[in-house]
Amino acid sequence: MTIIAGPCAVENREQAFAVAETIQRTGGEFFRGGAFKPRTSPYSFAGLGEEGLKILAEVRERFGLRVVTEALDESTVDLVEKYADMIQIGSRNMQNFTLLKRAGRSHLPVLLKRGMAATLEEWLLAAEYVMAEGNGNIVLCERGVRTFSQHARNTLDLAAIPAMRRLSHLPLIVDAAHGTGHNYMVGPLARAGVAAGADGVMIEVHPNPAKALSDGEQTLNLDEYQQLVRQLNAIQELVA
Amino acid sequence: MTIIAGPCAVENREQAFAVAETIQRTGGEFFRGGAFKPRTSPYSFAGLGEEGLKILAEVRERFGLRVVTEALDESTVDLVEKYADMIQIGSRNMQNFTLLKRAGRSHLPVLLKRGMAATLEEWLLAAEYVMAEGNGNIVLCERGVRTFSQHARNTLDLAAIPAMRRLSHLPLIVDAAHGTGHNYMVGPLARAGVAAGADGVMIEVHPNPAKALSDGEQTLNLDEYQQLVRQLNAIQELVA
Amino acid sequence: MTIIAGPCAVENREQAFAVAETIQRTGGEFFRGGAFKPRTSPYSFAGLGEEGLKILAEVRERFGLRVVTEALDESTVDLVEKYADMIQIGSRNMQNFTLLKRAGRSHLPVLLKRGMAATLEEWLLAAEYVMAEGNGNIVLCERGVRTFSQHARNTLDLAAIPAMRRLSHLPLIVDAAHGTGHNYMVGPLARAGVAAGADGVMIEVHPNPAKALSDGEQTLNLDEYQQLVRQLNAIQELVA
Amino acid sequence: MTIIAGPCAVENREQAFAVAETIQRTGGEFFRGGAFKPRTSPYSFAGLGEEGLKILAEVRERFGLRVVTEALDESTVDLVEKYADMIQIGSRNMQNFTLLKRAGRSHLPVLLKRGMAATLEEWLLAAEYVMAEGNGNIVLCERGVRTFSQHARNTLDLAAIPAMRRLSHLPLIVDAAHGTGHNYMVGPLARAGVAAGADGVMIEVHPNPAKALSDGEQTLNLDEYQQLVRQLNAIQELVA
Repeated sequence: MTIIAGPCAVENREQAFAVAETIQRTGGEFFRGGAFKPRTSPYSFAGLGEEGLKILAEVRERFGLRVVTEALDESTVDLVEKYADMIQIGSRNMQNFTLLKRAGRSHLPVLLKRGMAATLEEWLLAAEYVMAEGNGNIVLCERGVRTFSQHARNTLDLAAIPAMRRLSHLPLIVDAAHGTGHNYMVGPLARAGVAAGADGVMIEVHPNPAKALSDGEQTLNLDEYQQLVRQLNAIQELVA
Repeated sequence: MTIIAGPCAVENREQAFAVAETIQRTGGEFFRGGAFKPRTSPYSFAGLGEEGLKILAEVRERFGLRVVTEALDESTVDLVEKYADMIQIGSRNMQNFTLLKRAGRSHLPVLLKRGMAATLEEWLLAAEYVMAEGNGNIVLCERGVRTFSQHARNTLDLAAIPAMRRLSHLPLIVDAAHGTGHNYMVGPLARAGVAAGADGVMIEVHPNPAKALSDGEQTLNLDEYQQLVRQLNAIQELVA
Repeated sequence: MTIIAGPCAVENREQAFAVAETIQRTGGEFFRGGAFKPRTSPYSFAGLGEEGLKILAEVRERFGLRVVTEALDESTVDLVEKYADMIQIGSRNMQNFTLLKRAGRSHLPVLLKRGMAATLEEWLLAAEYVMAEGNGNIVLCERGVRTFSQHARNTLDLAAIPAMRRLSHLPLIVDAAHGTGHNYMVGPLARAGVAAGADGVMIEVHPNPAKALSDGEQTLNLDEYQQLVRQLNAIQELVA
Repeated sequence: MTIIAGPCAVENREQAFAVAETIQRTGGEFFRGGAFKPRTSPYSFAGLGEEGLKILAEVRERFGLRVVTEALDESTVDLVEKYADMIQIGSRNMQNFTLLKRAGRSHLPVLLKRGMAATLEEWLLAAEYVMAEGNGNIVLCERGVRTFSQHARNTLDLAAIPAMRRLSHLPLIVDAAHGTGHNYMVGPLARAGVAAGADGVMIEVHPNPAKALSDGEQTLNLDEYQQLVRQLNAIQELVA
């Protein structure tokens, strides 16, 4: 099973290294962390930029993890290619076709999140924009859709997992952090995602979620993360 | 874990007994089957009525299973009380307050399905209508909400499980048949429901789903059912 | 154009008469007022019951208005038939098939509100339950559907008006009060409904909305009502 | 009232001029036409590119209309600035922050469409990205949100008009073409938008909608357009 874990945003070396050490120790292979953060408000913390990418490159070197980070446009793809191992395209950009085409001309694999109101067909055609440029190395990430529900930030649509299996060969992971918005829901819904057949999960982890500069309310601490990884591995063995 | 299984509608003695035998053999305790079916069209098969209830009573006697069946109004509650062990109130009737109050005056436990566009608060206040009349024996059933999604009949909202745990002591089960509408999704989503912490699941089973008089496309056959029960038990042990 | 106006709930003779006088004076023909109120919470004011119906009958006699009021089940249909001119079936009961069939055996016309998550097909099939029992005198009422929107209580779906025109001969009105939930939106959306081709509107009016026992926040006062009626008539003439 | 009309995509000189002539004759001031079309599939017609912009510039010169056209990224904003009078940012790009910031550094006004699942707050914060860069010349365009509705391509949310009036001074127009997806709905919903208080409407017009290279099914022909303009003007006078 693929677990992509790490802080919402890279904040500094200490924070990144503390999380990376835990991921490495529990057998994880991928470290995620945002350097360029698309934020609803122009006045919110938007990431460290290239400085954040440099910290990610250190994480890669020191802990032997593969690094996943978001790109927002053509010029940030250039930077991500310089420092990271996988380009994340976020929900808001699922139909940013200029970005998709640029990612399609990259040698790096692409993590393509589902848009907040995207049908499966629209999501696959977004992937097709990447593939049409020559890059077939894509992982799809279900992260919840917007509904009338008020108890969670989004409604994680786990039926998308078996449905996608019938439409596409692309690997499929579940982001239970953005899919719920509450840290007490992350464990149950990540377990549910694996039980429904996902190939992996994406999880936000921080040494001290209460002090995270973004998304703290949906982030696990290091202990919660380690316990969850054990459960996820066990469930995956059962359903494999 | 509580598994409530059986055909969408009771069609005849042979069909009901074949399913009941499998449920009994795999350690199930509850048999579900509709005698009064609320159908979108007035011209669809609406169940066998009291004749169906009599078959359910035979199932109870012969296989030692507890019988769950839907009531549509005050007079069908009278009949359900005569033959069955638990009153199901369907999604369309979640805010049928006359029916809720009548169920509140029953000695039988009540299975209350979530309405197709109900918030958790509305769902709990519907349960409160039952409790306010003196019947506190209620099981809540998440069965999906209506969203823009086209790949499934409804969008199963599994975040409702951890969210409800913080709002209510009532047991919570997941109906992966109505929650998805496709039999190939029932297994993955039932597993997901248990992994997310549900106390049980509701599953539609038929000896020959292709010939079922209603909901065949979301119904498992006997073999699929048995295999799923094994997986659900194993997952529940892991997350307990 | 048909305007069905009146208070959410009949509270007392003075309140009902004050509203009725205004409706009569502005050329209205229909008075609405709830005697049996389906409320989300069992602890909310649920209407005056038969006492309310008696006040409605007085309104009819004294002001020459036709009276529309909601029935919740078979026994309240009996009472509504005794005192009123039209049976309203609310959103929560759009698929209460026992109630629909009973209304289908009534000599009174039926006002059938769309369910909060109902497709047009489900709505028409609900009407078909009434018609299949012999009562073809039905008015459909669009009152908003539930979406992710937070600025209004529901999302009024005005595309349903031209769409329904292609599916059914039944008259179609718009409830801008429940469709929005805010009194400052009632005027704009009622005007929009008529401009989109609705045959009429339903409006909540109260002599003192701030003191209304239910739905005050979506209710117009008498002055606002009179001004709106003038605009609606003018728009209807333009689009006729 | 502001009417922004024109074909979905600029196809050739003849098509553009025929539409422009009608707009000019009926008193319109704005011509819209896509040169860069964001399409769900990478294999659909994506517009004529700069050649289309040149045709738009001819329309401006010859008919004295102001030209509105969509930009997809920083480099297409450069081109739009060269040839057109207003930059359109489409729904899919409502949170493309790189594009928003670039538009914020433009001297041209910006037409900002609401995202398919955007709350009013998110929409206003997207506008804030433009304003924070120094460009306060923004028009908001409601174009429907995605819901469970199947009878229309999107659900036009006209309650957003009065709600926005309480949150922002920015002018607000309604796109009844994308908001419905069916040409028989465009008239009713455009009228509804004006009746609800919109400052204007956006309408797709084509000399021969059946032969349009994109969006023909939601496009009016020249006669339908002229008739609609008369109605919209009359309604606007009534509600002003």
